[in-house]
Amino acid sequence: MIEFEHIRKLSHPSPSKIVFLVIDGVGGLPRPQTGKTELESARKPNLDKVAQESICGLIDPVSPGITPGSTPAHLALFGYDPVKYNIGRGITEALGIDLALKKSDVAARGNFCTVDDQGIIVDRRAGRISTEENTKLCQLLNETSIPGTEIIVSPVKEHRFVLILRGDELSPQLTDSDPQQTGLAPKKIEALSTKAEKMAEIANKFVHQAERLLRSTHNVSPANMVLLRGFSQYPDILSMSEVYKLKPAAIVIYPMYRGLAKLVGMEVLHSGNNITDQLENLRRNYENFDFFFIHFKATDSRGEDGNFEAKVQAIEEVDAALPLLLKLEPDVLIITGDHSTPATLAMHSWHPVPFMLRSKWCRPDRVTEFSEQACLAGGLGRFPAIEIMPLAMANALKLDKFGA
Amino acid sequence: MIEFEHIRKLSHPSPSKIVFLVIDGVGGLPRPQTGKTELESARKPNLDKVAQESICGLIDPVSPGITPGSTPAHLALFGYDPVKYNIGRGITEALGIDLALKKSDVAARGNFCTVDDQGIIVDRRAGRISTEENTKLCQLLNETSIPGTEIIVSPVKEHRFVLILRGDELSPQLTDSDPQQTGLAPKKIEALSTKAEKMAEIANKFVHQAERLLRSTHNVSPANMVLLRGFSQYPDILSMSEVYKLKPAAIVIYPMYRGLAKLVGMEVLHSGNNITDQLENLRRNYENFDFFFIHFKATDSRGEDGNFEAKVQAIEEVDAALPLLLKLEPDVLIITGDHSTPATLAMHSWHPVPFMLRSKWCRPDRVTEFSEQACLAGGLGRFPAIEIMPLAMANALKLDKFGA
Repeated sequence: MIEFEHIRKLSHPSPSKIVFLVIDGVGGLPRPQTGKTELESARKPNLDKVAQESICGLIDPVSPGITPGSTPAHLALFGYDPVKYNIGRGITEALGIDLALKKSDVAARGNFCTVDDQGIIVDRRAGRISTEENTKLCQLLNETSIPGTEIIVSPVKEHRFVLILRGDELSPQLTDSDPQQTGLAPKKIEALSTKAEKMAEIANKFVHQAERLLRSTHNVSPANMVLLRGFSQYPDILSMSEVYKLKPAAIVIYPMYRGLAKLVGMEVLHSGNNITDQLENLRRNYENFDFFFIHFKATDSRGEDGNFEAKVQAIEEVDAALPLLLKLEPDVLIITGDHSTPATLAMHSWHPVPFMLRSKWCRPDRVTEFSEQACLAGGLGRFPAIEIMPLAMANALKLDKFGA
Repeated sequence: MIEFEHIRKLSHPSPSKIVFLVIDGVGGLPRPQTGKTELESARKPNLDKVAQESICGLIDPVSPGITPGSTPAHLALFGYDPVKYNIGRGITEALGIDLALKKSDVAARGNFCTVDDQGIIVDRRAGRISTEENTKLCQLLNETSIPGTEIIVSPVKEHRFVLILRGDELSPQLTDSDPQQTGLAPKKIEALSTKAEKMAEIANKFVHQAERLLRSTHNVSPANMVLLRGFSQYPDILSMSEVYKLKPAAIVIYPMYRGLAKLVGMEVLHSGNNITDQLENLRRNYENFDFFFIHFKATDSRGEDGNFEAKVQAIEEVDAALPLLLKLEPDVLIITGDHSTPATLAMHSWHPVPFMLRSKWCRPDRVTEFSEQACLAGGLGRFPAIEIMPLAMANALKLDKFGA
């Protein structure tokens, strides 16, 4: 199997440019009323035009039948084996809010939540408190104190925060305290190895102190407890410039995707507030990089809301902005999603995702539409997402021949 | 995953015959003027007839996006994992000209080249000197002398030669002297391990002596220097008769493919000078073997020349000769290429290659034409080349059931 060690030897820099547009959760399922998916229901002349000039297919983000989270799904898009590189949520959240991490730090994703008098979780998100309130509560939690361990609590958005534990010989081998459902008490954090036993004590001490601080202030906020998950350390991972010799940039709005982009060594550029802003910023920075990751979130969010019509509109919003990108005429243009989020299911799913790649050298097929059914007849067939990057590099003429 | 160890246990000899015709570099890209590839442009009634009776598909020689050299591409066709079996160019060249190699010999591929007064390479092929001149120069180079090491220099064709170093404890762990471009001096050969340091000295001594001999003769030839690459030893590799219990033969014209065929244990038969000669020799030897590898080169050469029309003609040349083969009615007939060489790109490429397999047991699909687009709808879909041999063996009813 071709691995990073081979790609590293074959890749070389060149002036050609690759633009990789990820429409999050774009794949869908037919709505019973019409028998059409979100993509099949949307008016999207620009996406369909690209499909006509592209080689198309369907990608399996991780493996058939496996529904991926956002992190493994994106790692696969960038060529990183998502099974091998199991990145904790704590790390991506911390990178997403620009925390400077040390290799030995342990990070966890935190939720402020609401528990009742018996300590049972009644709202995992504490009614989605405001980011301002979150910021105040994080200041409060920074008053927790555990000898020998530095504690850093930083707000993300709404009810979300990041906990960093800094010290000697800390281990991320811990279970979550977040049971991921209401009606249960937060779980005691447990060590997954004997080496991590001291660490489990530290993490549980933090939770107890946090609980006491949140209750003692007599605050009227519904946020009276914390939930922690995804304890993790910075992974040992090659950057995209090491593997592909690329100078990669990300133009993404949501913090977690900023974190993911940084993790693989992309420079995170100013994005603005919507896809039009993002594509304007692409144009402004076009000469300074040779790989661009553009991330569009609303398709996934509306899919998770179960709002079919709104997901269709989100697709049309991307389509309307697309001419800004097409005007740049990138040598290689890739449009796909990280996974499917069918509005009828209202969650991430395992269904393969429509994919298209346009380049001067792409051997176009007969697909004339960007949709699940149409891409099924594409020249790439159905293939693992991890194969996208070698294909992108080949089409950009950035890979040498393998063997004599 | 099914490996050689499994195939070895399942395979058994039988009288059925497999003919494997490799049309080198046959896959292509559409020409902008017509939107048709080389195969789609060629008149090829016989190939299309076979397609109608075959199960078709598209093969990935090594891995999607990876452009293979001829050696890994052919190894994959014969079922050898091309990433695992990384065969040096020196070995395939030496085998191609029938040099009897010892396991401990180190072989390198050599070019006669032209350098200017400052020692800078101005022509990597010394104007493609004649094979006669090459032969004389090789005799000269056989006068080099390094105590304790036997030196054998043998001509291949035009500017190409093979260097064999024979002695005790020689190592192939050396860098190339060939920088693979003009405008640079030949590189000093360096050891890739401490064990190879003495070997690097020997190789550099050979280069210095060769340079002196080539200059001192006051020859008028543009060949005044040598370039070496692909230092290698005979690999530890199972033969096709060990893995498949086949009695395999090769009817190939070009030296490198003779070398490859020998490497996997084929008997190399007399080929003649063109595809008609090759197929006549197939007929003559048909009773004596049960697997035949027929190699046609011109499609690749014309593709590399960027000559679309000539590549189309080369395809038509194969098609015209094909009835000689079809008359033999082999139990299994496979026709494909080792990789694509689109004339528009003028080089090997990563694009999947049209494939067809005809046998009494092949479950034919609805494909009626041998081309990139047509094979896309074939019953085999897109699949790795390494899976061809198990499929061929199955269709020849030479594989037992796996498990009870």
